[in-house]
Amino acid sequence: MVTTTATSLFFPAGFSFPTSSKTSMMLGGGSDKLGASGIKSKPTSSGGLQVKVNVQDNPKINGTMVTLKNEDEDETPLPPLRNFINQLPDMLIDPFVQEELIFSQNFSIRSYEIGPDQTASIETLMNLLQETALNHVRNIGLLNDGFGSTPEMSRRNLIWVVTRMQVLVDRYPSWGDVVLVDSWVSASGKNGMRRDWLVRDSKTGETLTRATSIWVMMNKQTRKLSKMPEEVRREIEPQFIDCAPILNEDSRKLPKLNDNTLDYVRTGLSPGWNDLDANQHVNNVKYVGWILESAPVSIWESHELSGMTLEYKRECGRHSMLQSLTAVSGDITGDLLDAFRVECQHLLRLESGSMVMRGRTEWKPKYANNLGSLGLIPAESS
Amino acid sequence: MVTTTATSLFFPAGFSFPTSSKTSMMLGGGSDKLGASGIKSKPTSSGGLQVKVNVQDNPKINGTMVTLKNEDEDETPLPPLRNFINQLPDMLIDPFVQEELIFSQNFSIRSYEIGPDQTASIETLMNLLQETALNHVRNIGLLNDGFGSTPEMSRRNLIWVVTRMQVLVDRYPSWGDVVLVDSWVSASGKNGMRRDWLVRDSKTGETLTRATSIWVMMNKQTRKLSKMPEEVRREIEPQFIDCAPILNEDSRKLPKLNDNTLDYVRTGLSPGWNDLDANQHVNNVKYVGWILESAPVSIWESHELSGMTLEYKRECGRHSMLQSLTAVSGDITGDLLDAFRVECQHLLRLESGSMVMRGRTEWKPKYANNLGSLGLIPAESS
Repeated sequence: MVTTTATSLFFPAGFSFPTSSKTSMMLGGGSDKLGASGIKSKPTSSGGLQVKVNVQDNPKINGTMVTLKNEDEDETPLPPLRNFINQLPDMLIDPFVQEELIFSQNFSIRSYEIGPDQTASIETLMNLLQETALNHVRNIGLLNDGFGSTPEMSRRNLIWVVTRMQVLVDRYPSWGDVVLVDSWVSASGKNGMRRDWLVRDSKTGETLTRATSIWVMMNKQTRKLSKMPEEVRREIEPQFIDCAPILNEDSRKLPKLNDNTLDYVRTGLSPGWNDLDANQHVNNVKYVGWILESAPVSIWESHELSGMTLEYKRECGRHSMLQSLTAVSGDITGDLLDAFRVECQHLLRLESGSMVMRGRTEWKPKYANNLGSLGLIPAESS
Repeated sequence: MVTTTATSLFFPAGFSFPTSSKTSMMLGGGSDKLGASGIKSKPTSSGGLQVKVNVQDNPKINGTMVTLKNEDEDETPLPPLRNFINQLPDMLIDPFVQEELIFSQNFSIRSYEIGPDQTASIETLMNLLQETALNHVRNIGLLNDGFGSTPEMSRRNLIWVVTRMQVLVDRYPSWGDVVLVDSWVSASGKNGMRRDWLVRDSKTGETLTRATSIWVMMNKQTRKLSKMPEEVRREIEPQFIDCAPILNEDSRKLPKLNDNTLDYVRTGLSPGWNDLDANQHVNNVKYVGWILESAPVSIWESHELSGMTLEYKRECGRHSMLQSLTAVSGDITGDLLDAFRVECQHLLRLESGSMVMRGRTEWKPKYANNLGSLGLIPAESS
């Protein structure tokens, strides 16, 4: 099993699987509403552990919990933190534990991972998702090469590529905060895999970030997508949890930006040596950096990125020259808390015009929680 | 005490202290040869602990040791790792310990911190140096603001700025490796402070990287350098260790590159929002990324960066546009192991022409240790 956010990443344009299962491939089987749905593990050889994750719909509410129970027991919520973790002194961090099919790892946010708002950047969060995914694969003994391929995948020259990623940030952690990242995988159609993440504050259990992503296999030599070979399925299927994604799919179509609809453009982007990962490919987090480079500084100053939906379409090579395009649209809703939210559409394309990635980002006003900066109530300290 | 690699960083051009102590300021008092020199702590209120660090001159030899002894005892080497660390299971990482005046912290190298050579990048190493420095300050209770100013410094609007940094990399760690970073500070002239680092493999004790740096104080408002106020000296002096720097000063003058002497140039560089640190300044590690952007890809492909000497001269603002210049010169010495080493000169300047930073980097052939890639002896696997 799974997932390298850092291998090569994209569909050859216009690709579809030989046997069509496109719809179901794009998001996992379940489609229950969040909060109403549970995670139910596939029976494994060790018996039918049932895992239930209750996720609050409201990102402002703390205390998202992972509850574990045996089939015969009632649902007994455990504290939001692993008991094991609670026994460690605060200074000990980055331990990881796998409780059956959910893999968990603690991370301490480092000084160089925070930005001008004194909080971790979105790239930092995505990096932590990647690290957790890879350690998950390593932990279950399926890591055959450096970046997530299983033994049967390596035998067939297959690598994982991400096609879709959706991230919702409730709150960014600060320097020194310890965050607990849970991650698990599910089937996605016949040939894909979904990986979800839940990022919480280790001390309080408060939900910080939720993310869901879709992965498929690509042949390393031909760069063509591949169906999931039966042997690979046998390797990874025991790890699949049968559950709805942690985030409902943002099914709004991503519009295709062009030179007439863009507001901002950044040209002349190209990967530096250190943007290449261990597979000599551009790391997918770098693409996020690039699309955000065309977001105007004024948005960064007044807002914080609260959500992101990305579609990876095509690989970018070591010598590619890219352009990043952004269109901005305000979206004032009736909800006071949501006032002045902003939405951006993004396109990353080769200079030749081919689309590499497109996406949508959502931004909420800084200090939206106390409304001070909106002048609606007196600011506490500004 | 100490050091923010991430606050604003530079001398206003042509600055000198009102009372001259420029020479002694540029590198700490001692100038003993490495390996022959020891670290001797200033007597502190708790009595005369003497700390001795023996550092091997030869970077290929493992087993650099930190030895601690009481004044009356003979030099009794301790194992290269803290006993405390040895008691922890491998999965527990990032604990930190301060043994008197040397602060130590473990870091696990994460997947997203490694590059195409499967090892940590130079930026990653520098980030870990910064993190250790800041945690050192925090640990001794002198961290008043987010980035290293002491209470007396904050009272006077003073921040630390780095003026010189020298780094020697013996070996880069890989994903999952745990590295132990030791750091300590010393006086540097009347108004400066030196901070040194020793980075070792936590398991083997092998020396991976050594670094030394010089810091002075700058007024946050006027952006002018400041003498060290007596009150600040009293705060930080008890932390100073009286010892020679871990690296001998590279006293070769850094030549000033210009358009006639440069081989490679990268223009149009400017900080993105996420290149700003918590003080809204460009992080000094970003400058390293910029100077390396003009190093040709061919060097990255055949060589690895083994050493670096940097002089920070001027701040770069949020809206600055910069140019990165590199000149390359081969340097084939008589020593077989050193064959095909390459040296680069670097200049980072504003588009207006003002120097922001200059530096020298040294590069050794990849796989130099087994000579296989040089065709001098049969390669083991290439």
